Amino acid sequence: MIDFPYIRDLVQSTPTKIVMLVVDGLGGAPHPDTGKTELETANLPNLDRLAGESASGMTIPVAPGITPGSGPGHMALFGFDPVKYLMGRGVLEALGIGINLANGDIAARGNFCTVDASGRITDRRAGRIATEESVPLVEKLAGIQVPGVEMSVHPVKDHRFVLVLKGNNLGEAVSGTDPEKTGVVPLPASAVSSESRNTAEAVNVFVSRARDILRGQKKANMVVLRGFSRLPSLPSMAARYALKPAAIAAYPMYRGLAQMVGMEVLKTGATFADELATLEKHHSSHDFFFLHYKPADAAGEDGDFAAKVVSLESLDREIPRLLKLNPDVLVVAGDHSTPAMLGAHGWQPVPLLIRSKWTKGEGTGGFSERACRVGSLGTNPATSVMMLAMAHAGKLHKFGP
Amino acid sequence: MIDFPYIRDLVQSTPTKIVMLVVDGLGGAPHPDTGKTELETANLPNLDRLAGESASGMTIPVAPGITPGSGPGHMALFGFDPVKYLMGRGVLEALGIGINLANGDIAARGNFCTVDASGRITDRRAGRIATEESVPLVEKLAGIQVPGVEMSVHPVKDHRFVLVLKGNNLGEAVSGTDPEKTGVVPLPASAVSSESRNTAEAVNVFVSRARDILRGQKKANMVVLRGFSRLPSLPSMAARYALKPAAIAAYPMYRGLAQMVGMEVLKTGATFADELATLEKHHSSHDFFFLHYKPADAAGEDGDFAAKVVSLESLDREIPRLLKLNPDVLVVAGDHSTPAMLGAHGWQPVPLLIRSKWTKGEGTGGFSERACRVGSLGTNPATSVMMLAMAHAGKLHKFGP
Repeated sequence: MIDFPYIRDLVQSTPTKIVMLVVDGLGGAPHPDTGKTELETANLPNLDRLAGESASGMTIPVAPGITPGSGPGHMALFGFDPVKYLMGRGVLEALGIGINLANGDIAARGNFCTVDASGRITDRRAGRIATEESVPLVEKLAGIQVPGVEMSVHPVKDHRFVLVLKGNNLGEAVSGTDPEKTGVVPLPASAVSSESRNTAEAVNVFVSRARDILRGQKKANMVVLRGFSRLPSLPSMAARYALKPAAIAAYPMYRGLAQMVGMEVLKTGATFADELATLEKHHSSHDFFFLHYKPADAAGEDGDFAAKVVSLESLDREIPRLLKLNPDVLVVAGDHSTPAMLGAHGWQPVPLLIRSKWTKGEGTGGFSERACRVGSLGTNPATSVMMLAMAHAGKLHKFGP
Repeated sequence: MIDFPYIRDLVQSTPTKIVMLVVDGLGGAPHPDTGKTELETANLPNLDRLAGESASGMTIPVAPGITPGSGPGHMALFGFDPVKYLMGRGVLEALGIGINLANGDIAARGNFCTVDASGRITDRRAGRIATEESVPLVEKLAGIQVPGVEMSVHPVKDHRFVLVLKGNNLGEAVSGTDPEKTGVVPLPASAVSSESRNTAEAVNVFVSRARDILRGQKKANMVVLRGFSRLPSLPSMAARYALKPAAIAAYPMYRGLAQMVGMEVLKTGATFADELATLEKHHSSHDFFFLHYKPADAAGEDGDFAAKVVSLESLDREIPRLLKLNPDVLVVAGDHSTPAMLGAHGWQPVPLLIRSKWTKGEGTGGFSERACRVGSLGTNPATSVMMLAMAHAGKLHKFGP
């Protein structure tokens, strides 16, 4: 929907405020024993009441059957075509640990791995060495210098790290060095297009030095790199929607995503209560807030149905505090489903609520997949959510005479 | 969905099996006396139970309001954009009688017609002469030879036949000779683009010889031709989805369609029970099966509501045999609706069921248009069905980081 060709002619700045609460992994699937989803199992008096005074529907994050990663799931909710604006793994890993990538920087996901005496990979994750073991190794790698390129290496978790390259004449079209199987030697990085030749050369020098530095380590005696990527070139939400948008998210990855689309990232704490305090504090200074709630996804990824139910109930208890701010438009959406039954992100459509002064009479009996899918909004691509929110906020002119 | 740009990066081959049962003309419309559709009127204990453990929804075969022919209806279910990969009438007629078209062959639909002494058409279908009368005439036409082009003529039914042209420098951009009205003379075939000039000339020679041969016949004393077309160039389902797909269909047209998209066509008998026996026999050798059930469409086309109900009840009795094979993913879909009230293909959305280990709790109370349209899958383009089936089969990686 970001590509609706006349959008810039339709948007208008108004004093109305939109709060978009993104419940990560919101959608679920019925438990085979009960036939009820996580949302249907949870006791959600406040969300149910909210559904009663909201327009409701379902979103399809990318396309039917497609399971989105966190990147595409959020991009779609922010109104960006997640296929057109696909970001690389390196960028997402960098955002995930809070690295402030500049335009043009190249980020890659790195793994420590184990190779045998002949250089063949025997363990692609170096026995999943603990973070405490990998951090000192990352510090050693950080000393590697390659002429003409500014390199930095950042620990992630366990055997994972991020490599960032800054400099002129860099390109992201570099093939990964991870053969994604054992028993073979790591691949050389190679330039898929000519403007990435310098980058591939620098990467190969880095890898060669890393091998020398790590020689003698029992497990982490080599590295593999993949997902070379740059920040995608994105239109700013501020310009696109005539908004002053802000992001409130405890996790670095979501802050990074928000920054990428031009939101101001507000400093906040580690919990959702902290995020709400931040929202309260800054409520007057912006007209769009992206508020991120993580625990539902984490529980779903763990395959823990009961924990996902608990996480939704915890969220429910915070809803009254959110409603006290009485935003003109309150959106409750999810970036994708994470059914506990799957123990992973899923392809299932995701419930959606939009409350505004125009929705008082159109609610459903509760907040769940089953209730929302017969709601007044119908089932729409997730890229439609921003436009629906803008419409409810009175921020969109009529299209055509 | 075939055009989802990253699909080849997402698919993975797994041991899981998908069975797609296509009930031809599945969807219906309510009988004005009862307000119930054919599916709602039929007694379908097995399909209803299946719906209770499946995800359900509706498909839109081509676009809202568009009534699809058999070709587009099936192409969409196989994941091919039916507008982009439109096949011509000649090709479909040829497939329908089991002609093995090679790439590059041109097929046209032919009609015997009646012309008066001045050559003007008086009956575009030669009084719908019986097949027994038309077959000997087709044999006479089969003797026509045109230098440089290998021609063959094949009887279809009643006044209809198929003309196939093989050779070099042929093209399908040839206008039809059927003026589609009476009182005028047949049109000359003409080349719409220059590479079809030879073809148009050969066709005109054929028509002229046919006129000579048929002179003196009472009814079928002339022919008209239309729908000049070639097999469309299609990506193979095998490559596209990393599948080993097989087709089991009693009717030649559906076997031809399946072959066109790269399925292996399994030899089977004339009944659905034969098809099931074929499925049982080959169940271990493929991971995707297209299984075709024809009678529902035939009854709908006849405008016989009761017969369509009976055909659905017959299908229902075979469902337990299908379930015994316990495919990882069972899809029950339709290529289009054929409401008996219309007595023809219709534009109405079509019910869809997908059963997998992920759907145990999410079913609806029965299998019908009304039940499926509030099902968990929502209403989707029919081109989404393959992607949904692939997702349920665990054959799709996550999209994006």
